[in-house]
Amino acid sequence: MRKEPATDPAEPRWLSAEEQATWQAYLHATTLLEDHLDRQLQRDAGMPHIYYALLVQLSEAPRRRMRMTELAQQVKITRSRLSHAVARLEKNGWMRREDCPSDRRGQVAVLTDEGFEVLRRTAPGHVAAVRAAIFDRLTPEQVAELGAICSTIASGLQPAGADLPWLR
Amino acid sequence: MRKEPATDPAEPRWLSAEEQATWQAYLHATTLLEDHLDRQLQRDAGMPHIYYALLVQLSEAPRRRMRMTELAQQVKITRSRLSHAVARLEKNGWMRREDCPSDRRGQVAVLTDEGFEVLRRTAPGHVAAVRAAIFDRLTPEQVAELGAICSTIASGLQPAGADLPWLR
Repeated sequence: MRKEPATDPAEPRWLSAEEQATWQAYLHATTLLEDHLDRQLQRDAGMPHIYYALLVQLSEAPRRRMRMTELAQQVKITRSRLSHAVARLEKNGWMRREDCPSDRRGQVAVLTDEGFEVLRRTAPGHVAAVRAAIFDRLTPEQVAELGAICSTIASGLQPAGADLPWLR
Repeated sequence: MRKEPATDPAEPRWLSAEEQATWQAYLHATTLLEDHLDRQLQRDAGMPHIYYALLVQLSEAPRRRMRMTELAQQVKITRSRLSHAVARLEKNGWMRREDCPSDRRGQVAVLTDEGFEVLRRTAPGHVAAVRAAIFDRLTPEQVAELGAICSTIASGLQPAGADLPWLR
């Protein structure tokens, strides 16, 4: 006679073979792609991928400026990692920090003309690399499906009260 | 009269609105998930996600050992990053290095019993975190689709002669 319940609540729900294969493929693709884009941007513009993402965010913001806290949230990084990146970008002359007029403790990151020019020169090569690595390899249906899957994962990781990078 | 060809080869092929949305969702999901799993593993086992991946690889290898070069390739990282990680794991007593009997210049990484025990204790919490973040949120069709998409991206980034992390 079986004493254990059919599913033991103490037994971890291990991944199935198919889930395991998907998880391995996810880890391989994301690790290789991040390395590839970091190398591409280091080679072409002397900056890592995350710096490029910061320049892009500011370039799309009104008056090319954004509060530091909002910038960290947009790029999904910690405030300390953002401070470090902005200090480096400021040294390059691509960004500058200003005090926030509406909040004495807050700061605003501003894209300089030089930073905008670096972005303008770098964007074509970067978009070509992203396209070659992802969009040229997927069908339009896969692009839509990948977007839906990633949106589901991203929103699941940001419930109210979550320990999110930009709140640390 | 239009002088330019319909598609100017000098004009970058910018991402469409849908591609752009997918790309943003991809960046958000992958950045948030890596942060989430790093935090989970730091909290529960005092190690970052990449160290955990190294322990898993060795635990699944024959005699729980693997050549360093092969380990770097499996986990898709540079040899210098691997050396640094293994030095730390060796200090913890979770891994040790041995000279490779068949190659005088090569080294083999070996999972210790203590390292295996750490993995045994840590795996249930980690698989629960991965499941909650990804597999419990996706349909079986999405899991299969995500696996296919990631495999396509990963193999596209590893053509013969590519500048791959473990070859540097």
